[in-house]
Amino acid sequence: MAMSQVVNTYPLSNYSFGTKEPKLEKDTSVADRLARMKINYMKEGMRTSVEGILLVQEHNHPHILLLQIGNTFCKLPGGRLKPGENEADGLKRKLTSKLGGNSAALVPDWTVGECVATWWRPNFETMMYPYCPPHITKPKECKRLYIVHLSEKEYFAVPKNLKLLAVPLFELYDNVQRYGPVISTIPQQLSRFHFNMISS
Amino acid sequence: MAMSQVVNTYPLSNYSFGTKEPKLEKDTSVADRLARMKINYMKEGMRTSVEGILLVQEHNHPHILLLQIGNTFCKLPGGRLKPGENEADGLKRKLTSKLGGNSAALVPDWTVGECVATWWRPNFETMMYPYCPPHITKPKECKRLYIVHLSEKEYFAVPKNLKLLAVPLFELYDNVQRYGPVISTIPQQLSRFHFNMISS
Repeated sequence: MAMSQVVNTYPLSNYSFGTKEPKLEKDTSVADRLARMKINYMKEGMRTSVEGILLVQEHNHPHILLLQIGNTFCKLPGGRLKPGENEADGLKRKLTSKLGGNSAALVPDWTVGECVATWWRPNFETMMYPYCPPHITKPKECKRLYIVHLSEKEYFAVPKNLKLLAVPLFELYDNVQRYGPVISTIPQQLSRFHFNMISS
Repeated sequence: MAMSQVVNTYPLSNYSFGTKEPKLEKDTSVADRLARMKINYMKEGMRTSVEGILLVQEHNHPHILLLQIGNTFCKLPGGRLKPGENEADGLKRKLTSKLGGNSAALVPDWTVGECVATWWRPNFETMMYPYCPPHITKPKECKRLYIVHLSEKEYFAVPKNLKLLAVPLFELYDNVQRYGPVISTIPQQLSRFHFNMISS
């Protein structure tokens, strides 16, 4: 039996934030998004996406970095893999696209860690499940969430149309209405880790 | 980045089930239970409990073994550690007490695997959280859930006052009303594993 795995978390104030050009959403509606998914599925088969859980601490409580679009919708940084792309490489590419600065020196040294969850989309619908439902032989998407271990200090460049929020676990927990089923159960998925809270 | 960890799951029909003497609950009400917890806390400090997730498969979908008390309440097999007891040893002791046969030859070879969740009880109340809430310096209980890897065939002796159920993940998911917050989010906590479904 392994001991708890450790995740070092540094104060939010250790990190600095700038802005960069907007990253517009590819779709303007859920219907458009599902239609694009269908077209891509016909070309490339099952969509594989990866998202990163970036952790900081405030008041010795873990917080997760979420990108806010508009005034309500929050998402984890990440995105779709290219066909054949490795999950860690694809996640680093997506994190750099979403949060890296515009020169190589301003791109964080992303350390992709433990997978904490896998979600399956059985049909071209918004519902996803933390298992591939029985009788589904051709799922349409598989999404995997990874812890991304941050260095002690980093610079993040946030697209101008988005906000980057540090949201405490206690705010996410049991809050499916606000954060949806994937993000609201991250506290449970992280509960097996020991958070080593480092105070600057 | 590690690949998905594998959990072998065998058909429910591989396992055989007998009965043994009843294991009565120590408390007859929630109030009694919380009162006993308080007395034990004063003697021994924070309660540490461990519970086992025992997996089987039916129709190539993972199922979890739950003990049912009466007609509605379900729980994972497990219980409280003795002061200073190692988590894996304590879990094996509790699993044998709940599900082992009455002779050493009839006790499964419990293989305690990965920790999948930790829950904290901040006060002498029923509410538990998947993190120690901010400002709580003396939590009253820490409960840890472990995968228990079963062998291809086993015999379980079920106390006469309890039923042992194999409940599919799709029944647990999003069903906090029936299974409570700890058991209903096990599907999310297991989603990072690859289940190797072995057909007898």
